[in-house]
Amino acid sequence: MAVNLLPPDPRALHPVAGVELGVAMAGVRKPNRKDLLVVRLAKGTTVAGVFTRNRFCAAPVTLAKKHLASAQVRSLVVNTGIANAGTGKDGLKRAFQVCTALSEVIGCAPRQILPFSTGVIMEPLPVDRIIAGLPAAVADLAPANWVSAAESIMTTDTVPKAASRRVTLSTGEAVVTGIAKGSGMIRPDMATMLAFVATDAKVSGRELKTLLRNATSESFNCVTVDGDTSTNDSFMLLATGKGPEVSAKKDLIALQKAVSEVSRILAQAIVRDGEGATKFVTVRIERGRSVAECRKAAYAIAHSPLVKTAFFASDPNLGRILAAIGYAGIKDLDAQKVDLYIDQVLVAKGGGRNPNYLEAQGIAAMKKPEFTVRAVLNRGRASATLWTCDLSFDYVKINAEYRS
Amino acid sequence: MAVNLLPPDPRALHPVAGVELGVAMAGVRKPNRKDLLVVRLAKGTTVAGVFTRNRFCAAPVTLAKKHLASAQVRSLVVNTGIANAGTGKDGLKRAFQVCTALSEVIGCAPRQILPFSTGVIMEPLPVDRIIAGLPAAVADLAPANWVSAAESIMTTDTVPKAASRRVTLSTGEAVVTGIAKGSGMIRPDMATMLAFVATDAKVSGRELKTLLRNATSESFNCVTVDGDTSTNDSFMLLATGKGPEVSAKKDLIALQKAVSEVSRILAQAIVRDGEGATKFVTVRIERGRSVAECRKAAYAIAHSPLVKTAFFASDPNLGRILAAIGYAGIKDLDAQKVDLYIDQVLVAKGGGRNPNYLEAQGIAAMKKPEFTVRAVLNRGRASATLWTCDLSFDYVKINAEYRS
Repeated sequence: MAVNLLPPDPRALHPVAGVELGVAMAGVRKPNRKDLLVVRLAKGTTVAGVFTRNRFCAAPVTLAKKHLASAQVRSLVVNTGIANAGTGKDGLKRAFQVCTALSEVIGCAPRQILPFSTGVIMEPLPVDRIIAGLPAAVADLAPANWVSAAESIMTTDTVPKAASRRVTLSTGEAVVTGIAKGSGMIRPDMATMLAFVATDAKVSGRELKTLLRNATSESFNCVTVDGDTSTNDSFMLLATGKGPEVSAKKDLIALQKAVSEVSRILAQAIVRDGEGATKFVTVRIERGRSVAECRKAAYAIAHSPLVKTAFFASDPNLGRILAAIGYAGIKDLDAQKVDLYIDQVLVAKGGGRNPNYLEAQGIAAMKKPEFTVRAVLNRGRASATLWTCDLSFDYVKINAEYRS
Repeated sequence: MAVNLLPPDPRALHPVAGVELGVAMAGVRKPNRKDLLVVRLAKGTTVAGVFTRNRFCAAPVTLAKKHLASAQVRSLVVNTGIANAGTGKDGLKRAFQVCTALSEVIGCAPRQILPFSTGVIMEPLPVDRIIAGLPAAVADLAPANWVSAAESIMTTDTVPKAASRRVTLSTGEAVVTGIAKGSGMIRPDMATMLAFVATDAKVSGRELKTLLRNATSESFNCVTVDGDTSTNDSFMLLATGKGPEVSAKKDLIALQKAVSEVSRILAQAIVRDGEGATKFVTVRIERGRSVAECRKAAYAIAHSPLVKTAFFASDPNLGRILAAIGYAGIKDLDAQKVDLYIDQVLVAKGGGRNPNYLEAQGIAAMKKPEFTVRAVLNRGRASATLWTCDLSFDYVKINAEYRS
């Protein structure tokens, strides 16, 4: 059950000139579901990407990084069902076989293709079924297929995730449209599960990297469902250059705003659709000494199973939040200075219970499907925000039954 | 449902000369349950303790540290129900009121008393009810009350936890007996929830600290249920000196062995009785470069909600374990060198699936109530072991409903 998350309206997803998307049912792991996506990019498209820092990064991640560094990208290929992670050298061979097969269908070199996979770890990629599915996906290629593409990359997701913005540059109107998938194994580290955002704006490779870095730090690197950093996290930003050119500083600022907004909507959508989620919670730490320590405290809260089950129960068992701040690793934190709010309710003041706080206020705030936990450390000027969800019976059910 | 954990047999718990225990039903938070424990110590008893490093450490922890440093300890007083944590200066005042009241009943100075609390955080300690219960607890004081004492410190525990050993020193036979409580909010950091281990052996203060430090690192600092380090963790080692003296190096070694063994049984009992636990899992990392990196990898596995739900489901979704090792923060880890075993089953070899591995073997191993996950990093000579449990529906149920 996703929290305040509706399927995207196809009419609200603006096509991006130079980007075509096609999907197929390849039966990668289960029959009769869209599980294969091909994205074809116009010649001259610039591409930037961030990838998981997990040392067990998947074979397609290794290959996509290598291809991105060495050639002009013409196509992405994404399969769900099998992650092709923890598969050693054989996994690399299989990922390359998929690139080779697609390169022959669309007419380019294998290294001009970036492969992505998501699904079960440590099982071999069924290359034959994927290759057999490629012609159907290529035949389906069209600029308007964004919703279908979002559907094709879902695994335990319950809602397809897509977002789109128009942005006015000095040279004309550009569009930014993107899709993402992700629901469990979510604590992105410089990237997310899988997200692909495209614009028709014409930007240099260097500008694209800046856009990507800024967008990532305000979106995918601010969400966590369960603290598990995936082996397959990838976030790709594509700029086809078929639309208006970024010719002034204010254009770049406007484009950054649109890219960041689309990325943030997608990142939040992943949390809203977090496995078993019934609450969407913003965790904000203020007045810390550094952003790093604020993020430490925010992650400690967002990863604590005790805090997350209290969210699920709408139980203002707020001592659990203080305890999490206390073990977050801020060595010289003065607990006597910490204030804690749930939305506007001042719950703890100076490290202890606010004498005017009534439990009914805390319950009322936490019963809402969305609320903010805000801790003020009162020791500096830095702050940080994370988005997370609760830990429910359904999280356990989904993950105890996944695969079976 | 605890995993292979029986209530202690009272006949197997050897009284410790110089230690008397008395309990009462003080109605701290709920009526008709043992919730108050007084431990009276013979004059001359040496005491050493380790406490939580949580910056929101509870008022009784702050006070116990102070008293331990400044006076000869004559008594411990422990209440359940309310943790007296996140309670600011008022919490310190209340904890001291309890010490003062007990000091008047048993005839010593308030600072000769160490207070301990466990239960709900951020609610005020009901001092009046505790003080009213003290005479009954003192009237109950007797050397044989170890089981009753173990019962009196339970919160969400389902089984009282106690262990005892006799140890032969060159000067005679000594005993080591201890109790512990804990079930959730368990990831001790230099200490555990609450554990009290006593011996009648005569040891110096310096020797006692060594015994404590070694026992802690082999027991309470090797367990985790949910990764939440409590505000109230305390592990106290008491030596009354009423029994044989430690007069030779080999005596200290023998005593260390007994103290460590009792501590390990208690620490493992906490995991066996972990909230909602259905599996007791040993996580062992071998051939790492340092103990620190082995512990990082072990904690990443033991804290991953995805790994823990797979344990619950007896589902050898072993890629989740590799993924956890991958994000554990060992920056230069070569994933291609990692081998993974479930008990004797070689699951992954060189970072990928062992081609001879059959899933039926993994399921068979994981269906047992106890098994070992062993990862061999093949990059050094260090190793580390942790004990943990699974994440079940009942963990969510217990923590969503606790307090309500």
